[in-house]
Amino acid sequence: MIPEDHPRYRSLVARERIAACARHGVVALEGVAAHGRGEAFDYLIGETTTESAARAEQTAAALLLAAAHPVISVNGNTAALAADGVAALQRACGAAVEVNLFHRTESRIEKISAILGKAGARVLDGEAERLLPLSHDRALCLRNGIYAADVVLVPLEDGDRCAALRDMGKTVIAIDLNPLSRTARTASLTIVDELTRALPRITGACETLTPGERERLVFGCDNTVFLREALDEMTRRLCHALD
Amino acid sequence: MIPEDHPRYRSLVARERIAACARHGVVALEGVAAHGRGEAFDYLIGETTTESAARAEQTAAALLLAAAHPVISVNGNTAALAADGVAALQRACGAAVEVNLFHRTESRIEKISAILGKAGARVLDGEAERLLPLSHDRALCLRNGIYAADVVLVPLEDGDRCAALRDMGKTVIAIDLNPLSRTARTASLTIVDELTRALPRITGACETLTPGERERLVFGCDNTVFLREALDEMTRRLCHALD
Repeated sequence: MIPEDHPRYRSLVARERIAACARHGVVALEGVAAHGRGEAFDYLIGETTTESAARAEQTAAALLLAAAHPVISVNGNTAALAADGVAALQRACGAAVEVNLFHRTESRIEKISAILGKAGARVLDGEAERLLPLSHDRALCLRNGIYAADVVLVPLEDGDRCAALRDMGKTVIAIDLNPLSRTARTASLTIVDELTRALPRITGACETLTPGERERLVFGCDNTVFLREALDEMTRRLCHALD
Repeated sequence: MIPEDHPRYRSLVARERIAACARHGVVALEGVAAHGRGEAFDYLIGETTTESAARAEQTAAALLLAAAHPVISVNGNTAALAADGVAALQRACGAAVEVNLFHRTESRIEKISAILGKAGARVLDGEAERLLPLSHDRALCLRNGIYAADVVLVPLEDGDRCAALRDMGKTVIAIDLNPLSRTARTASLTIVDELTRALPRITGACETLTPGERERLVFGCDNTVFLREALDEMTRRLCHALD
């Protein structure tokens, strides 16, 4: 058991949860490694939501509320760490929830859908079709889900798929701790924050932002500014790390 | 199959190798996440051996050659990625090789010893005893191995164990891509480089350094300088990442 007053309690609990879900086949081994990469970048922003990330989270809420057909794309890591957070955000913004996996098997789709359902999310089902401009099974998604969406929230997404969604003209909101990743650079809006910190803030903003604030946030959204601010924060912390 | 001309070929091959070894029980799930953290920091030094790391690798060779009883401590990730490299370094510097695991089971010890043996390393065996000043099984090591060593090379080591070895008066050489980790700060010498790049360079230096060069390197070894240089390199790259 990790003591609750451990300074890195949340990070250690998340790591245990990812490992447990990997043992049960919910998280792919590649997902475990990806979680480790995320931990490293989270460490560099101090394992806290920066002021810049908080603004990105408000902007995400504004984009989701302004959408005609918003969809939250959920993979194994997201379900493992934040099924409750996904369900709460769905209630707050009315988005559809679609399970979409890079390492796709029917067994994983079912397990992840069950975790989300248990947390209270309504999960789209149906026959996935090859509708994204990508090779192999990475092209699979639901016709009435991601394919029809105008705004897609993709926590922890692969770079190729993020680019494909952008090429289809969609607004893509990524949650990615690495501000240098292809996903982070390609998305319409990148939230450089840890998933379980980010989702409740997006949900909270959905519930509290006024229409005027929402309009200003959507209008002022500039992803390069958010990425620059995240890099500046990491640089600042690295510079002072040995002082 | 990953194409050999892929710019990140080595990194992707290493990741696949870690995942395959996790499926076979050689690498622990925690080791998969740790590998991901390493990937993130490696990305920040450009996935290349910096001039500073090359000097640290020469210093490591000098320390190993000057030792009375050098030991290379090998865990699951090290065996998965660099069994050949460990065997070659053992031939070059005459160190003993001991399997020492954080997530210790007899089954993993046997599997890892077999991988090392197949690569040509001579692996210490015997009954592990609780000889390190640590709680639980993390205290286990061999009396004629790490316990008796004056210089220990610990690729990818845990911070507590690194500190315990230092407290016992040993010279500890760590290979750790995170210059901010407790291991990196506690070790006598930290090589901020990726394992499969670092080991052949240490081996090469063992074979080519003159006695005079070795003496100068041992005398001039200052770990804070190596850590500072690694952080400077990461900061420099982050600053220019979006230019």
